[in-house]
Amino acid sequence: MERALEGFLPAEDLPPARLHAAMAYSVRAGGKRIRPILVIAAAEACGAPAARVMPTACALELIHTYSLIHDDLPCMDDDDLRRGKPTNHKVFGETLAVLAGDALLAHAFALIGGNAREEGVGPGAVAEVARLVGEAASSLGMAGGQAADWLAEGREVTEEEVTFIHRMKTGALIRASVLSGAVLAGAAPGPRAALSRYGESLGLLFQIVDDILNVEGSAAAMGKATGSDARRRKATFPSVVGLPAAKARAERLLAEARKAAAELGNAGATLGGLAEFVLARTA
Amino acid sequence: MERALEGFLPAEDLPPARLHAAMAYSVRAGGKRIRPILVIAAAEACGAPAARVMPTACALELIHTYSLIHDDLPCMDDDDLRRGKPTNHKVFGETLAVLAGDALLAHAFALIGGNAREEGVGPGAVAEVARLVGEAASSLGMAGGQAADWLAEGREVTEEEVTFIHRMKTGALIRASVLSGAVLAGAAPGPRAALSRYGESLGLLFQIVDDILNVEGSAAAMGKATGSDARRRKATFPSVVGLPAAKARAERLLAEARKAAAELGNAGATLGGLAEFVLARTA
Repeated sequence: MERALEGFLPAEDLPPARLHAAMAYSVRAGGKRIRPILVIAAAEACGAPAARVMPTACALELIHTYSLIHDDLPCMDDDDLRRGKPTNHKVFGETLAVLAGDALLAHAFALIGGNAREEGVGPGAVAEVARLVGEAASSLGMAGGQAADWLAEGREVTEEEVTFIHRMKTGALIRASVLSGAVLAGAAPGPRAALSRYGESLGLLFQIVDDILNVEGSAAAMGKATGSDARRRKATFPSVVGLPAAKARAERLLAEARKAAAELGNAGATLGGLAEFVLARTA
Repeated sequence: MERALEGFLPAEDLPPARLHAAMAYSVRAGGKRIRPILVIAAAEACGAPAARVMPTACALELIHTYSLIHDDLPCMDDDDLRRGKPTNHKVFGETLAVLAGDALLAHAFALIGGNAREEGVGPGAVAEVARLVGEAASSLGMAGGQAADWLAEGREVTEEEVTFIHRMKTGALIRASVLSGAVLAGAAPGPRAALSRYGESLGLLFQIVDDILNVEGSAAAMGKATGSDARRRKATFPSVVGLPAAKARAERLLAEARKAAAELGNAGATLGGLAEFVLARTA
């Protein structure tokens, strides 16, 4: 997948080279690649080979990368470091960081559209994926979650509100990754519905685990804030319901995700394992 | 089309309401709506009704709107006014302005994907439109042109460079608008090639006319810079080749656009008229 990601980026010697360098810098900064893995695992669970969904899998990673670049901007979380490296705007400046994010988002939809060329993909499936990924990244999904998160900053929020923010901010794109794989594989309504539930549980689980890691990371650093979420008093599950309740909620979400994956029989084993891997990070 | 644009925006009472207000604010700020008009005119020239391409037509306007919001940001052109009204970040703050732009771009691709539901549209055409619009908005198109423009700022550029910047910054999305209409109408290769040439000439014409209007607007204001392009010493055709040569180039581009439109016979009359309208703005 790392090779595929590289191959789908515009060549760095194409003008404007500095913009292409900025895009590649953040894509190469690594990460768990959980979204493309989910696209592929969902497709495989529905009987399609990884190659059939690779452009869309990489597109989901580019959308995630764009969101990190914009999140780190001075007017957003104002972070200097991401995964131990200087953030995009620290290296390339704010102007190119904004444009690199914009370009990655647009390029992702070029890849999704181009996925129609892969063998075995119905063009109607590609239109459906563009629709659902577009919505998941929009104000009804990730961008909406970022805005809700920012608008809630510094004030008390309810468990219902933090659940809404997390479902939008992180859950929507995770669920869209799973659904994209299912749609491109031509999944029947039954498996598709199971994968939708799986994606929904996993998406919320993913953000709650992130919250828990932030709290425990902060504790490990003896009260020193380790990330912008802690520094900026963002709405997190542990801060709203307490750490034990957050962990209990995560356990319930894992059980839901595993149950949904189990509906796919043996084919869902990888997806069940991925959900366990997500929660195991807190152990 | 104004009604259709309103209808395709997320309802403003949906959370986060403030983000939806920011998106609607800039969409409602008006403008010539040239991109959606081109989608519809190209589709009609190929025998398809406007209704068949309306979601994509509006998507192209949302992409244009997002680009204006981001262009106006403090780290970009730092403009306080746009079409005589306060810019998005002046009203909603930088954070929401970045997110409103991001959300409009993502939402546009949700609309393009959803265009598969319109009667008479082949789903393969929708995938092709997602691909070509995604590329036109990416680093190989509009975002790349913005970056090239910014990277060239303050230094001498050649006619070749300013042509490249203009083709990317403005031309790519104009051409993609024309092509989207043709593709969704199921245009045959001949008309499609003519429309591609038409879009290419019109796109460059459009930006050169903008350059000329900026110069003449500045002159009319007796040397007072009227826009950020003049203030920030951006690469423009008049500044590189002089005003008379810029006007001559615009005339040649109009002739090329009209010639390409004429290849469609009577069906191309509206497109030819649109090209004349674009240049007539300088008269």
